[in-house]
Amino acid sequence: MEYAAIHHQPFSSYAYSYDGRTVHIKIRTKKGDADQVRLMWGDPYAYTIESANEAQMKKIASTEVHDYWFAEVTPPYRRLQYAFVLTDRDHEDRFYGSSGVCPYHAKTLGPINDYFKFPFVHDIDTFQAPEWVKSTIWYQIFPERFANGREDLSPEGVLPWGSKEPDVNDFFGGDLQGIIDKLDYLEELGVNGIYLTPIFSAPSNHKYDTLDYYSIDQHFGDPALFRTLVDQLHRRGMRIMLDAVFNHIGSASPQWQDVLENGEQSRYKDWFHIHSFPVKEGGYDTFAFTSDMPKLNTANPEVQTYLLDIALYWIREFDIDGWRLDVANEVDHAFWKTFRQAVLNEKPDLYILGEIWHNAEPWLRGDEFHGVMNYPFTAPMIDYFADSGISASQLAHRVNAHLMNGMQQANEAMFNLLDSHDTQRILTRCGHDEKKVRSLLAFMFAQTGSPCIYYGTEIGLDGGNDPLCRKCMVWEEDKQNQKMLKFMKRLIALRKQENALLTYGSLEWNLLDDRNDFISFSRAAGDKQLIYFFNQGSAPRRVSLQDLKIDSSTKVYDAWTEQTLDHADVIDVNPGEFFVLGAAAAL
Amino acid sequence: MEYAAIHHQPFSSYAYSYDGRTVHIKIRTKKGDADQVRLMWGDPYAYTIESANEAQMKKIASTEVHDYWFAEVTPPYRRLQYAFVLTDRDHEDRFYGSSGVCPYHAKTLGPINDYFKFPFVHDIDTFQAPEWVKSTIWYQIFPERFANGREDLSPEGVLPWGSKEPDVNDFFGGDLQGIIDKLDYLEELGVNGIYLTPIFSAPSNHKYDTLDYYSIDQHFGDPALFRTLVDQLHRRGMRIMLDAVFNHIGSASPQWQDVLENGEQSRYKDWFHIHSFPVKEGGYDTFAFTSDMPKLNTANPEVQTYLLDIALYWIREFDIDGWRLDVANEVDHAFWKTFRQAVLNEKPDLYILGEIWHNAEPWLRGDEFHGVMNYPFTAPMIDYFADSGISASQLAHRVNAHLMNGMQQANEAMFNLLDSHDTQRILTRCGHDEKKVRSLLAFMFAQTGSPCIYYGTEIGLDGGNDPLCRKCMVWEEDKQNQKMLKFMKRLIALRKQENALLTYGSLEWNLLDDRNDFISFSRAAGDKQLIYFFNQGSAPRRVSLQDLKIDSSTKVYDAWTEQTLDHADVIDVNPGEFFVLGAAAAL
Repeated sequence: MEYAAIHHQPFSSYAYSYDGRTVHIKIRTKKGDADQVRLMWGDPYAYTIESANEAQMKKIASTEVHDYWFAEVTPPYRRLQYAFVLTDRDHEDRFYGSSGVCPYHAKTLGPINDYFKFPFVHDIDTFQAPEWVKSTIWYQIFPERFANGREDLSPEGVLPWGSKEPDVNDFFGGDLQGIIDKLDYLEELGVNGIYLTPIFSAPSNHKYDTLDYYSIDQHFGDPALFRTLVDQLHRRGMRIMLDAVFNHIGSASPQWQDVLENGEQSRYKDWFHIHSFPVKEGGYDTFAFTSDMPKLNTANPEVQTYLLDIALYWIREFDIDGWRLDVANEVDHAFWKTFRQAVLNEKPDLYILGEIWHNAEPWLRGDEFHGVMNYPFTAPMIDYFADSGISASQLAHRVNAHLMNGMQQANEAMFNLLDSHDTQRILTRCGHDEKKVRSLLAFMFAQTGSPCIYYGTEIGLDGGNDPLCRKCMVWEEDKQNQKMLKFMKRLIALRKQENALLTYGSLEWNLLDDRNDFISFSRAAGDKQLIYFFNQGSAPRRVSLQDLKIDSSTKVYDAWTEQTLDHADVIDVNPGEFFVLGAAAAL
Repeated sequence: MEYAAIHHQPFSSYAYSYDGRTVHIKIRTKKGDADQVRLMWGDPYAYTIESANEAQMKKIASTEVHDYWFAEVTPPYRRLQYAFVLTDRDHEDRFYGSSGVCPYHAKTLGPINDYFKFPFVHDIDTFQAPEWVKSTIWYQIFPERFANGREDLSPEGVLPWGSKEPDVNDFFGGDLQGIIDKLDYLEELGVNGIYLTPIFSAPSNHKYDTLDYYSIDQHFGDPALFRTLVDQLHRRGMRIMLDAVFNHIGSASPQWQDVLENGEQSRYKDWFHIHSFPVKEGGYDTFAFTSDMPKLNTANPEVQTYLLDIALYWIREFDIDGWRLDVANEVDHAFWKTFRQAVLNEKPDLYILGEIWHNAEPWLRGDEFHGVMNYPFTAPMIDYFADSGISASQLAHRVNAHLMNGMQQANEAMFNLLDSHDTQRILTRCGHDEKKVRSLLAFMFAQTGSPCIYYGTEIGLDGGNDPLCRKCMVWEEDKQNQKMLKFMKRLIALRKQENALLTYGSLEWNLLDDRNDFISFSRAAGDKQLIYFFNQGSAPRRVSLQDLKIDSSTKVYDAWTEQTLDHADVIDVNPGEFFVLGAAAAL
């Protein structure tokens, strides 16, 4: 057994309170090393080897190099002392505790031994995301390009809608009234959460260079129009999330202008990270190397008060449901902890979503964000489906590694996506192969976490990297890909119907080494499961239901068409297509 | 190379801001696997494989199964992207990034690859402990047993000082005046920080069953006397730390009494964790299973306000320097984060010390405690010196593993100890072998972290587990172990003299496999080092200075006696003894 590979860490994604009572325990071993793992646990003040509880741990995931084992326990006094017994293939037991591995001799393992501790399970320390997020299908809108509902608001020099591919500084006139006009469309599509990129006053079309956080950009509308949008969304049971750009501010903002004007005498000089005066390019911290986006000093209490007040204003006055935090990883953790307390105090079920492209575990420990834009999950999906760059087992391993990296409740509230205003559109990324896009969408919708579609994906909008991914939405029905739209509606409906299963259910991969272009997995909970098959090869694949060893008393059906199947049936999955098999205990 | 054993995690003790500018990076490999490790790093917004910086990582520690590699980098824009190049013994390179290990081909490693990110180095997120703690020698006092300075305060039925071994409910009359009377003694001993177990009103002799957090126990003194104590300590350049028992309260407290009296109608019913009314034994959460110590509900804002006000009161009114937090691991993290902000806002260099017996990493991430009672460091020392239960290399491995578990600045502010009011006294633990006690003390004083001695250790006080470890201090000089006292004074003086080296210097073990009863290590910084030799065997050991390969231009000396040595000298270390060799560049 490879001792050097064993890993466990209390108060991390390896040991955490799931619900204020139940503790989730994970341990990682070298792949194939352990035949079984048992968890020994009890109360720290009453622990004896004789009275210790034992729980069989379940191998819930494997990666290229590791196996992950899981158990959940509910300690009666909310205090937990525990250790692991690892059994290798030769049936030899080893004890693994906080001091490492040693041979297992039950008689020597008294209370004085080195056990792990979860000293008390506190509700207040438990990662808790708003329930509604877990049943939300998000739709991301870049407001300048979604719909022009008020031509009178359009900026000077506005281009005719969709008249050309967008350039960096183009304006096409999209606005809030445009979104309001399309709410029937969105409701019919089935999405129930709208994420708008910034709508506050700013010179650019993307509005990430904020001028005034308290006003709706004049070309998008005004407070009354925004209030109407929120009200109409809420009346339809839909949520709205805004984009908070708190890492930096626009150089046109009064604060930065004051610094430029008054230099060291400016009352805003400590709002930024200025290296020396007079202020010159390169002489202050910015977002990336973008000199018109000076970085805010979020450790300054004045800046904190300023930003928190903004965050609270839009909740209090307009009842928004979520804040998406731009460049969240470059703002200090201390600020986000304060932010979380402030906004949840104002609205306890507000969703806090960070923009973080890399492993975001340090922000998802329960006291900062509820979720992040889940790009690390996007990457393996695209590598597999769009690029055929990795094998089916590599996809499974990378998805598993990513899931194992987080607490279960963090995975449940993730913001899953294939593309955004910051990436190529998925259709372009797939070389305009619609089948690949459909498979990617079906795959993403089958996983834990709230899926988001970027406006236009549902009607086949394409586009390369920024600014090309910010094309005007196409509203003429004959120019929309109606097949994709129909597909999207069915996919959304299926997700909503099976949301509990797809959020909380187990994930099991059914991989055969010789089927790297054919991937299958099941999501299961209780006596129901959905089994997905994706054929990414060039030949048709046939699956015999009998090979799947599904209990014969179970009702089997095509989950997409809802057509009942027979246990003797075979399923043909054509190249580039997928199939979703349902299996549920008959009523 | 064992991929399954490689470990790195941003925003943990593997990657953290050391001082708001410099980032410490560690990586763990299987022992003996890597021949060298290089860190590739650059700015995330300007990263190219050609422009990336490379830093050679240093193998700073090994354990039974792992090697740890270290580098520090100071990214010019405070943004950091990085990955590792691991070279095995066959000179083959591998790239290790956030997606795991892959073969190293420089050409394929563009900015799109999976690098680790430390997105921004924030001062406010940096673990910062008060500087003074790092040069403090602590002395722990159990006030009821240190000195009786005011017989008029002693409780009824008080026993004559030191007349018997203490029983659980005995009182001997120790008080604050007693401590004041002995300040010359303490100053002469050399300690410069006093930690008092609880002094607030409480029925017991240990006072962990608080009755009133705002009053000094009547048998210990009054506010004026406590103020005198603090003033006199401060005038001598000494600090004082009090014990905050916030996990639970005494059952005699008015709050709990109110609950008993009024049940569900009590205004304090939500101050506790009561399962059902009427309140009965076993029907509410307690410390351990101690029914007269009901656990406080620290998630209740009223309780938070109550406890924080107490914490601030003793700082504001009496200028105390530290809070030691009893049963800190069972109170919620959220409370401690609030606590930290509140007390540091009142006194920025207050020391926050948690009582945690196990791995305390989750409380030492920079936003809760500065240090913990370092029992996990105590354990291997005792296993080696007191019990001869582990080998010298096992001691080194366990100390290394413990140090690697924390950020460097957390290790610097640790509260190291051999015993306390909660354990056997170290002399008893060592079977009354004074040599072992001296070796243990010398070993502890040679390590990073503030050492603490439990009152009486310096004059040879013994005692088994509680209540026997709470004997009355012996003040008659002829009954004190004067040899131990002299030793202790020299040890403290040496620590103070070499404190920077012993706090910040590197630690290198010089172990030979056949010398498991002889342990040696060096602490080094700049052109100075101290080399320690401990002979735990039964035969004398001879060390030839020439074998140590010390630069011949260096001045070598016996650090204990300050006697100059010659490079041709040999050192004889007798069984049970130790030797401290100094080597410094000649002036």
